[in-house]
Amino acid sequence: MEKMKVTPWETKGDIDYKKLIKEFGVVPLKELPGIFNKDILFRRKFVFAARDIGQIITRIRDKKPFCVMTGLMPTGKFHIGHALVLRQVLFYQKLGATVYIAVADIEAHNARDQSLEESKKIAIEEYLSNYVAMGLDLKKTEVYFQSNRSKDSKKSNAYYRLQNLFSKHSTFNEVKGVYGEITPGKLMAALLQASDMYHPQLKEFEGKPIPTVIPVGIDQDPHIRLARDIARRFNKKLIPISSSYHLFLPGLKGDKMSASDPNSYIAFTDTPNQVKNKINKYAFSGGQKTTEEHKKTGGNPDVDVSFQYLKLFEEDDSRLSEIYEKYKSGKILTGELKKIAIEKINSYLKPIQNKYPESLKKVKTFFD
Amino acid sequence: MEKMKVTPWETKGDIDYKKLIKEFGVVPLKELPGIFNKDILFRRKFVFAARDIGQIITRIRDKKPFCVMTGLMPTGKFHIGHALVLRQVLFYQKLGATVYIAVADIEAHNARDQSLEESKKIAIEEYLSNYVAMGLDLKKTEVYFQSNRSKDSKKSNAYYRLQNLFSKHSTFNEVKGVYGEITPGKLMAALLQASDMYHPQLKEFEGKPIPTVIPVGIDQDPHIRLARDIARRFNKKLIPISSSYHLFLPGLKGDKMSASDPNSYIAFTDTPNQVKNKINKYAFSGGQKTTEEHKKTGGNPDVDVSFQYLKLFEEDDSRLSEIYEKYKSGKILTGELKKIAIEKINSYLKPIQNKYPESLKKVKTFFD
Repeated sequence: MEKMKVTPWETKGDIDYKKLIKEFGVVPLKELPGIFNKDILFRRKFVFAARDIGQIITRIRDKKPFCVMTGLMPTGKFHIGHALVLRQVLFYQKLGATVYIAVADIEAHNARDQSLEESKKIAIEEYLSNYVAMGLDLKKTEVYFQSNRSKDSKKSNAYYRLQNLFSKHSTFNEVKGVYGEITPGKLMAALLQASDMYHPQLKEFEGKPIPTVIPVGIDQDPHIRLARDIARRFNKKLIPISSSYHLFLPGLKGDKMSASDPNSYIAFTDTPNQVKNKINKYAFSGGQKTTEEHKKTGGNPDVDVSFQYLKLFEEDDSRLSEIYEKYKSGKILTGELKKIAIEKINSYLKPIQNKYPESLKKVKTFFD
Repeated sequence: MEKMKVTPWETKGDIDYKKLIKEFGVVPLKELPGIFNKDILFRRKFVFAARDIGQIITRIRDKKPFCVMTGLMPTGKFHIGHALVLRQVLFYQKLGATVYIAVADIEAHNARDQSLEESKKIAIEEYLSNYVAMGLDLKKTEVYFQSNRSKDSKKSNAYYRLQNLFSKHSTFNEVKGVYGEITPGKLMAALLQASDMYHPQLKEFEGKPIPTVIPVGIDQDPHIRLARDIARRFNKKLIPISSSYHLFLPGLKGDKMSASDPNSYIAFTDTPNQVKNKINKYAFSGGQKTTEEHKKTGGNPDVDVSFQYLKLFEEDDSRLSEIYEKYKSGKILTGELKKIAIEKINSYLKPIQNKYPESLKKVKTFFD
C-alpha cells in the first residue's frame, strides 16, 4: 500500500479520509438537516467534511442570503470528477445562494504559462457551457475572469484592492507552505485567490459581510486555511469562509483521474460509444477472475469503479442498494454491472449534451 | 567626508553625481534642444541625467503625443524638494504631454502601515491641491489612487491585470535588490508601481505604446530599472520608459531634507514669517565667520543653501550671476543673501498659496 500524500499540488497513495480530517482539522459531516440529505452528494457522503458549515445551515433554515463561491482552472477537459464541485454549487443555488464563479486565468498564466485568450476559450467551451447545461442559472451568478473582474468599475477596483491589501497580511512562509516553491507570479495568484474567496463580502458586492461556502476537494483545504488566516489578520469584520469537502472520485483505472490521460476519466463530451468503450476497457473491477468464481464468492462493489460512478448517477437508493447486494453476492457479473453504469452515465450525459449548443450561446452572450 | 550611499531607501554622505551616473548607467544630459534650456531646471542642471530621453525629444520636436508619469507618496508635507518633480511634470505638460499621476496609497498602506483614508486626505490637501495651484491642468491629467484606479472599468481591469501579469516576469531577487528585505506587501507595491509606469501604453489608455518619461530623483533609478526589466521580459511591444534625473535639493542645514524635521525644508504651507525664520536660523551659510573676514575673502555660494534655493527661484540668469559674483567677492554678506532668498521664496509661494483654496475645491470636485 503506497504511503498517502495529499497536498494541493500532489495526491498519491491510498487516501485515508479519517486521517485527512484529523490532519487538516476539518469537521466530519454527521447530522445534516433533511434538505441536505435529499441530495445524494451529502446522503452518500461524497461530501464528507466541512469547516464552519453551521453558519450556512442556519442561513438556509432562516432563508437568509448566503453565497457559494467556486473557481475553475481553465485547462483540460471538463469531466465527471469536476462535476462534484458544480453539483454542490447547483445544490446551494437552488437553496437561494448567490453564486460566484472565478475563472482562474491569472493563475493559469502565472503558474502554467497559458495565455489569457486560451484560458477564455477553454473556460467558455469546456467548463461554463457545461455548467449552464447542467442547470446553472447565469442570472443568479457572477461569473468572471480574474484578469477582467467586472464591467462595474467599483466592483473591479474593490476586488483588486482587496488582493493588494491582503498582501500586507500574508507571509512568504505561509504561502510557500501551500504552494511549495513560490515565485512572484504564484504569490500574486494566491493573493488573488484569497480575494476571490472573500470579495463577495465587500460592500461593492453583497453589501456587507455574509456567510460564504466554498466547495472543494479535501486536497484544497490548505488554500482555504491560507485565505482564512490572511482575512482574519486583515479585518475582523469579514466572516470566515465556510467550506465543504468532497472525496476524490476515482479514475477509471482505480487510481487518480489525470488531465493528461483521457482514459482515466469520462469527459462531458464523450459520446455514448466512448463511454461504453472506456468503462468496458478501463474501469477497474471488483469482480473475480472467472465467472464461476464470481458467482461463488461474489464481487467487491466498494473497490469497483463502475459501482463508484453509479453511486453518483443512480438517484434511487433502493435500486443502488439492490445492485450493491447482487454484485456482492455474485448474482450480477462485472459485465452486467458495467452495462448498468454505462447506461446510467449516458442517460445522465445525454440531456446535458443536448443542451450544450444552446448553453454555449448563452455563455458567449453573457460575456459580450 | 562621509562615504556616499545612494539607494531608494537610504541616501547619505556627500553625493558624487558623476560617480552615480557611472554606477547607475544613466546618461548625463549635455546638448539639449533650446526649448529645454528655456527652463532653469535643465539650464541650471537641476535635471542632469536621463535614460532614453532621445525618444521624448523627438516626440516634442515632431509634436507627437507622449506621456509624463509620476507618483506621489502621500506622507508628510509638500515642500520645495518635492517641487522639483512637479516642475518637470508641468514643463512636459506645457509641451503637450498627457500627465499621469499615481497616488501611492497601496504602497503607503503596505510599506508604511498608513490607512487609505489618511493617504487620500494627505494626497489631496498636501500634494494635489498644491500641484493645481502650481499650474497642473487637471483636464489634461489622469490623477488616480492605486487602490481605486478609474471609474472606467476597462481601465481599472487593464491596470490591475498588468500588475498581475508583470508578476510572472519578475524574480524575488531583483525586487530585493531594489527594496532590500521584501514582504509580500512590498512586492505587490513594487509590481503595482511597474504597472503605474507602463499602463499608459495599454490600448485602454493611450491606445498604443507611446513614449513615456518619468522624472525622478537619481536615488529612484533602481525602480526605473526594475520596471524596465520586467516590462521587457513581459512584452516586446511596450516601449521602454524614459526617465530624467534631478539632483537632491539640499536641506536647510546643508544635509538631507527629512520629513521628520520641519526645520530641514520649506513647506508650501509655510508663512512668510516661517520662511524668514527658517532661512535666517537654519540655512547653512557659505559665508565667513566675521563680517570683516567675509568682506576680505568672500563667501562660497556653491555650498550656501540660500544660494542653492535661489537657483531654483530666481529666473533671471544675469541677476543670479550677479548675486553669485557679489557673494563670492564678499560684496554681499550672508544676511543680505538670506534676505534675497527669503524674498524670492516668498514671492514664489505667495501666488500658489493664494490659489490654494480654489485648487483644493477643484481637486475635491475632481474626485467626487
